[in-house]
Amino acid sequence: MSKYKTLKEEAFEANMEIKKQNLAIYTWGNVSAFDPAKGVFAIKPSGVLYEKLKPQSIVVVDLDGKIVEGNLNPSSDTETHRVLYLEFQGIRGVTHTHSTYAVAWAQAGKPVPVFGTTHADHGTEPIPCTEFMSPEAVKNNYEFETGKLITETFKKAGLNPAHINMVLVSGHGPFTWGDSAAQSIYHGAVLEEICKMAWLTLSINPLANPLPEHIMEKHWKRKHGSSAYYGQKTQ
Amino acid sequence: MSKYKTLKEEAFEANMEIKKQNLAIYTWGNVSAFDPAKGVFAIKPSGVLYEKLKPQSIVVVDLDGKIVEGNLNPSSDTETHRVLYLEFQGIRGVTHTHSTYAVAWAQAGKPVPVFGTTHADHGTEPIPCTEFMSPEAVKNNYEFETGKLITETFKKAGLNPAHINMVLVSGHGPFTWGDSAAQSIYHGAVLEEICKMAWLTLSINPLANPLPEHIMEKHWKRKHGSSAYYGQKTQ
Amino acid sequence: MSKYKTLKEEAFEANMEIKKQNLAIYTWGNVSAFDPAKGVFAIKPSGVLYEKLKPQSIVVVDLDGKIVEGNLNPSSDTETHRVLYLEFQGIRGVTHTHSTYAVAWAQAGKPVPVFGTTHADHGTEPIPCTEFMSPEAVKNNYEFETGKLITETFKKAGLNPAHINMVLVSGHGPFTWGDSAAQSIYHGAVLEEICKMAWLTLSINPLANPLPEHIMEKHWKRKHGSSAYYGQKTQ
Amino acid sequence: MSKYKTLKEEAFEANMEIKKQNLAIYTWGNVSAFDPAKGVFAIKPSGVLYEKLKPQSIVVVDLDGKIVEGNLNPSSDTETHRVLYLEFQGIRGVTHTHSTYAVAWAQAGKPVPVFGTTHADHGTEPIPCTEFMSPEAVKNNYEFETGKLITETFKKAGLNPAHINMVLVSGHGPFTWGDSAAQSIYHGAVLEEICKMAWLTLSINPLANPLPEHIMEKHWKRKHGSSAYYGQKTQ
Repeated sequence: MSKYKTLKEEAFEANMEIKKQNLAIYTWGNVSAFDPAKGVFAIKPSGVLYEKLKPQSIVVVDLDGKIVEGNLNPSSDTETHRVLYLEFQGIRGVTHTHSTYAVAWAQAGKPVPVFGTTHADHGTEPIPCTEFMSPEAVKNNYEFETGKLITETFKKAGLNPAHINMVLVSGHGPFTWGDSAAQSIYHGAVLEEICKMAWLTLSINPLANPLPEHIMEKHWKRKHGSSAYYGQKTQ
Repeated sequence: MSKYKTLKEEAFEANMEIKKQNLAIYTWGNVSAFDPAKGVFAIKPSGVLYEKLKPQSIVVVDLDGKIVEGNLNPSSDTETHRVLYLEFQGIRGVTHTHSTYAVAWAQAGKPVPVFGTTHADHGTEPIPCTEFMSPEAVKNNYEFETGKLITETFKKAGLNPAHINMVLVSGHGPFTWGDSAAQSIYHGAVLEEICKMAWLTLSINPLANPLPEHIMEKHWKRKHGSSAYYGQKTQ
Repeated sequence: MSKYKTLKEEAFEANMEIKKQNLAIYTWGNVSAFDPAKGVFAIKPSGVLYEKLKPQSIVVVDLDGKIVEGNLNPSSDTETHRVLYLEFQGIRGVTHTHSTYAVAWAQAGKPVPVFGTTHADHGTEPIPCTEFMSPEAVKNNYEFETGKLITETFKKAGLNPAHINMVLVSGHGPFTWGDSAAQSIYHGAVLEEICKMAWLTLSINPLANPLPEHIMEKHWKRKHGSSAYYGQKTQ
Repeated sequence: MSKYKTLKEEAFEANMEIKKQNLAIYTWGNVSAFDPAKGVFAIKPSGVLYEKLKPQSIVVVDLDGKIVEGNLNPSSDTETHRVLYLEFQGIRGVTHTHSTYAVAWAQAGKPVPVFGTTHADHGTEPIPCTEFMSPEAVKNNYEFETGKLITETFKKAGLNPAHINMVLVSGHGPFTWGDSAAQSIYHGAVLEEICKMAWLTLSINPLANPLPEHIMEKHWKRKHGSSAYYGQKTQ
């Protein structure tokens, strides 16, 4: 029996959520689950329909990008996942989809302002949007460079990937992460909803104010940090 | 057997409607049912998925905010519900969700004009939108202050919560209420539809006229008051 | 056994389509089926949820507005249906809903231009939008006057209800009709789709051109009139 | 047994995808499958609901437009399909629908810019939009002329139908094609999603930049051509 069985099942379950949460048509999304102790992550195989996906078809890749288990090609976005695990210490899951509203903001090339508590419950900053990748970077390992583009964007702006677990890659789409594969896809669904709400907000009021700092802080702390009181202690 | 069994079942059924009416993703909504004779209300536990919710997991809270039955933490919005029951005499149910179009109007910081009979069938005024909460109020009991913000908004504008059973909290989202938990969630669904229609109306015609007073009055009275003739007498 | 059994079943089936085609939430729509030989129409009872509707609960009303069969109150819009059967010779079914996009155009107070063949396949003119009803008319029999408002709008503009089987009542919503109850609800679904497409068209291009006359004529004739060749002869 | 059994089944399956992918209400779409060796294509019968469609009801037509098998009238758009098979060498399937967002762009009379990688994964150019058909052409065989309008649009602009497998017919709607009937309907769903994303992009940022050439090229080559590495070799 595979020693990656649990990790592969975790990745499988999270990939199946893409369809349940309506975040992609056909095969347009992939989730991976990371095991830092073993130094490997389990990821969706490339181009396989979710309705045909099985736990066994999940591919296991190490931090050098080498396949350590699985007969199928891993997602073409595998190198992007790998960079995020290498550079964003502590994350355990990564999700990439082409969800409609998040892609629209990525194509618009705009960060998503914090317009409300729905956003503030999940992050304390606008959702960043990268620059377009340079022609030189595209000529290199494109998917690896996509990861670097994300991590450089966070470094340059002094952003903490533990507090902002989502990004828009300009002209492409969203990447989200979290404490687990399940949380990364949860953040994918949250981002899609935030992006839809923000678009509607501007459509109703192009001069809408961002949420004041004091309310934003409050909502983040309700759900996160030492004094959080949302949810159940025993869950 | 619990003496709150019926009240908890009422709250349970109304919370399950959140998903059926597509008013929230994940756990982003909560409904409570109030029993004025017993001076308690039954409310969703915090952070529990609707698909895992059971009548037994509903928490019963009294008007001082003390838990009188249940092992789980009540919704983090419990204090807001409590204020509404204390101040809006006669209501028996309260609903809070993060439904997409209502949140968008709340984030836009705009009251929703009465553009048509769909709105007038359910209320005789624009749906009010509060101010942002002050930094001082946020430092206090935030959720309690959210309730006060709503009731103060109604008082200042001279609005009758029996005629306008919905409000938008600026930068946050909708609260609705009614004669029962079931009616409060019905008003949540009505508000979402009204918000979508009003956004589309302005998108088609930024200079759209509000519904004339005489038609608005007529529609309200068709469904409400002593001469109402909508529906069945025996229902 | 009721001599209106077939008519009531026809009305029942058409009312159930409201939910299947997503044209209303809760009870916000009603369809009737007309039998000109018997001089009666069968219509949904007021305020009954579609999931609780049965063929037996359908109410039969004559052209004077008198209930001839049924224990429930008929739809509060019954008088509007009655006027349409009296004035639009040859129609056999009427549908009224609060479908989202059609209501938005009605609230915007704008006729829907013929932007494409989807519209032209079903009508040769913009979908008319009435004026607001006058205070005097509202004081009369409101629902009867709604019917008059529709038929007067057609008369004044010289429109043929056999060629344009849909209308928007300003600030209220759509009424559609057809050769049968089933066709009237089909036109309700067509109108909703046309309204969504027209809104999107203007959102993409505020200066979009209407469909040229020669293409509009062609599409209408493909489906209607003596030289129609769409569909199957034997159906 | 029919010697077209496999081709008819292929066409049947692809037509059933129209509903699964939500690309049309009622009967508003049709797919055909082409067998170049036999010189025939199998197409949906006109005006038949998808829920009543069977493999046996599919009609087989030759390249002169003559029915070679089937008792029903073929789709009224058959002549358009025929022209595409005659003029776009190598294609094996054609899809036409009235999907909402693609129709909106067609009615807006605008080509869809390449705003992102979702588009670039499937084509290297903006999605072309034809002119309106002339009154003379409409008087001829209208559906045949629709095909000519598409192929002339490609010729005039020097576009390669192997690289851009979708088009918008002005004031009408989308036609897509591919290596099989299944791929043509896949392209129909892709086009609908691209059109929705592009509309949202412009709504968020009316000055949104198209995707830079170097990223567009990269995404096309990831999925197409000799060095493609998306998906599984063995699939």
